[in-house]
Amino acid sequence: MSLVDTKEAKSILKRPAIYTDYYELTMAQGYFLSGRHGERACFDYFFRDIPFEGGYVVFAGISDLLEILESFRFHEDELQYLAEQGFRPEFLNYLRDFEFNADIYAAKEGEIVFPREPIVRVEGTIIEAQILETLLLNILNFESLIATKASRMKYAAGDHKVLDFGLRRAQGYGGIQASKAAIIGGVEATSNVYSSFVHNIPASGTMAHSWIQSFEDELTAFRKYAEYYPDNCILLVDTYDTLASGVPNAIKVAKELEERGYKMKGIRLDSGDLAYFSRKARQQLDDAGLDYVNIAVSNQLDERLIKSLLSQNAPIDLFGVGTRLVTGHESPALDGVYKLGSVNGQPKLKLSENIEKITLPGRKKVLRYFDSDGNFYGDGIVLAEETKPNVIHHPFYPAKHSTVSSFNSEPLLHPLLENGEQLHELPSPTESAAYAKQRLEKLNPEHKRFDNPHIYKVGISKKLMDLRDNITQSLKQKS
Amino acid sequence: MSLVDTKEAKSILKRPAIYTDYYELTMAQGYFLSGRHGERACFDYFFRDIPFEGGYVVFAGISDLLEILESFRFHEDELQYLAEQGFRPEFLNYLRDFEFNADIYAAKEGEIVFPREPIVRVEGTIIEAQILETLLLNILNFESLIATKASRMKYAAGDHKVLDFGLRRAQGYGGIQASKAAIIGGVEATSNVYSSFVHNIPASGTMAHSWIQSFEDELTAFRKYAEYYPDNCILLVDTYDTLASGVPNAIKVAKELEERGYKMKGIRLDSGDLAYFSRKARQQLDDAGLDYVNIAVSNQLDERLIKSLLSQNAPIDLFGVGTRLVTGHESPALDGVYKLGSVNGQPKLKLSENIEKITLPGRKKVLRYFDSDGNFYGDGIVLAEETKPNVIHHPFYPAKHSTVSSFNSEPLLHPLLENGEQLHELPSPTESAAYAKQRLEKLNPEHKRFDNPHIYKVGISKKLMDLRDNITQSLKQKS
Repeated sequence: MSLVDTKEAKSILKRPAIYTDYYELTMAQGYFLSGRHGERACFDYFFRDIPFEGGYVVFAGISDLLEILESFRFHEDELQYLAEQGFRPEFLNYLRDFEFNADIYAAKEGEIVFPREPIVRVEGTIIEAQILETLLLNILNFESLIATKASRMKYAAGDHKVLDFGLRRAQGYGGIQASKAAIIGGVEATSNVYSSFVHNIPASGTMAHSWIQSFEDELTAFRKYAEYYPDNCILLVDTYDTLASGVPNAIKVAKELEERGYKMKGIRLDSGDLAYFSRKARQQLDDAGLDYVNIAVSNQLDERLIKSLLSQNAPIDLFGVGTRLVTGHESPALDGVYKLGSVNGQPKLKLSENIEKITLPGRKKVLRYFDSDGNFYGDGIVLAEETKPNVIHHPFYPAKHSTVSSFNSEPLLHPLLENGEQLHELPSPTESAAYAKQRLEKLNPEHKRFDNPHIYKVGISKKLMDLRDNITQSLKQKS
Repeated sequence: MSLVDTKEAKSILKRPAIYTDYYELTMAQGYFLSGRHGERACFDYFFRDIPFEGGYVVFAGISDLLEILESFRFHEDELQYLAEQGFRPEFLNYLRDFEFNADIYAAKEGEIVFPREPIVRVEGTIIEAQILETLLLNILNFESLIATKASRMKYAAGDHKVLDFGLRRAQGYGGIQASKAAIIGGVEATSNVYSSFVHNIPASGTMAHSWIQSFEDELTAFRKYAEYYPDNCILLVDTYDTLASGVPNAIKVAKELEERGYKMKGIRLDSGDLAYFSRKARQQLDDAGLDYVNIAVSNQLDERLIKSLLSQNAPIDLFGVGTRLVTGHESPALDGVYKLGSVNGQPKLKLSENIEKITLPGRKKVLRYFDSDGNFYGDGIVLAEETKPNVIHHPFYPAKHSTVSSFNSEPLLHPLLENGEQLHELPSPTESAAYAKQRLEKLNPEHKRFDNPHIYKVGISKKLMDLRDNITQSLKQKS
């Protein structure tokens, strides 16, 4: 519970309307000049590939997007800039009065989502639905990426704590969102003071090597730290020589803390073979009767290294993760796209040589089916007006299908914005983290494993399939 | 030349003092409580590995950092938050009046830099020099990463234009910096309206597939676009069928534009085999007498694909690059670090099992040597008070050395901030791009190639080596 009003701090993006691709505006002017700005359009946000060769994505970013939309307008100096670029006065007048009054349906922040299914549906005038594209993609792609990476790290760590130390290697101001998304994905705390301040999430951190170097010797540095932070004393032990100097000095200070009535919280290892050093350090600590002193480790960790360390029974209590969490490392972008589904109720699709890249037409919803254990069975993409279909088909191999009539289902998308007005209070990152955790428990473990995870079923209804195939056919005849 | 005052827009980071790691503040309080806050410290910023397995880094971000430092202070609500975290009133009073009054020496924005050499040196009180760490690393690591990636793409593209289309896949608000850094690295324009507005750099963009889908047919969509943008008409030709529909329709519209006295600017290919489709499209255009119509391509491009396309003589005029530019793709972080060099004039270093990770002690400068052609020969890291040494040694194999007495040299680091005051006006991204281009011309081509680039010489002086080895020796005896 924060005493601080963080409203002002949250809206870091002061100019959301121009945090966009130029072509959104050239298209918007085109719609305006052709007199089409009253037409209604429906766009879907979805992704095609799961990053990290994983089995699921944790959806995040929708709260930031909705919050930013509250201040979505064109400022005078931005209009002046657009005039210099050659945009026409009548269109700039239109933008001057522009308000984002669309409807947004979306999965909940923290939801577990899968390829090809619409995660967000935007319905509004063709201009407002179009010009949201870049901003929406920028925020949702990145926050979902990092929430997913964090979820994998936490899954590997099990009951051990995972902390975000990544700000120094985050991609610039994206670090603001990275730390928030990491919390949603399951990380317990962050080194990022800004995120802690704004989102009321726990901050963590004690000392760098420079603290130790700045004193005459390591023991003095440790003692000074313990003097000021007896309750939260985690000593970095690898500045000079971990086992010959760092751990023995930490033990001395832990004993001195005991005399003062305190228990030292831990030591941190930031280099070397973490399995070897954690085992040796644990032994030294235990031999000194300090079995309560935790061991924290850091240094280029990711989910596979965490899993490897724990499978070696390395006596580690806490993992500090940085670069590979906040950048996504091997998959630094989620490939989410925003595609037109209909205009004025008329379904639209984009052809492709590659059948997997043909988009799904029309206004759609997603049903999540539950198996008899109450776990996720699979998802069905169906037309918005359909009642629950009995059969869900593989999107490309129609012969593959599942009968889902006996399964319970719930809608994946919920109305969040109606005529530009938020329908619900936005969840805090901690609330979204709790939701993600609860939903992840309903995902069978074969989808969570790191190597060749089982592919989660996402099918489409017969009606949607027929619609897609008929439009494809008629477009091919035309061209 | 912009009519717009972008001063306000530039400073997106409204709370720079808390965009930091928590441990900077626990250490700062520790220095304060131990009465050491008047001590002077000197820190170096440097990196160890060149990203992308490349041969050089384009340094960027220093202008953003200096600009942000102008508003570096702790706000009341931030102090209140810190009080809730348990920071002590006397330290918070100190922070309330805190001003960043350090000295900063740095390489120029756009400079070509190499591993292990100090690129920035910060000198100030131990508290101000310490708490700058995270902010400095966050900004310089990311902007240098993207400027370097952009430089490689431009190098591959040669005289062909390269455009940044990456905002939708950028890492959240980091997209603001990515587009700027891409310009510094050599990209010609950006789709990012925000960056164009703030930095006065050219914006670019025409249409998405949704524009074409939203009309009854492709030809109507093309005609409408040409009607509103006859001067800047680039048509996206792969929505339905590139060669059977897209290019033929584009040719019709180009002919209609000719009748109106305009020349169509280009077509864009965004899918399929870009070598094959560009060749076929070029043929169709040329057969129609439209040899002036350019071909732009996009879709997951990077420097190697650009090089491959051009080596196949694909008739491409313009490359639109996105995800792999703005995220750094295979190397999504530069591993820059910020290490303590001295306290109160006393040199400091951090030991490591790995000799390559032992830091260089003391207050240092960097000399760049030029060969007889005026190209970069190599760099020497020397103590700040040294005059130009005659010999530069390999940092780890002292027997390897170069005699540099006959070479011209210039200092790499320049004073930019003195007692917190900026000494020079900050360069614009366009100016820094021009500087980077000019400096890159002085880098021999073997350092620029993509496969196994030749390693650029970065050595140290005998005095610095002796200082390092003596301190290492005495620290090892102590521990």
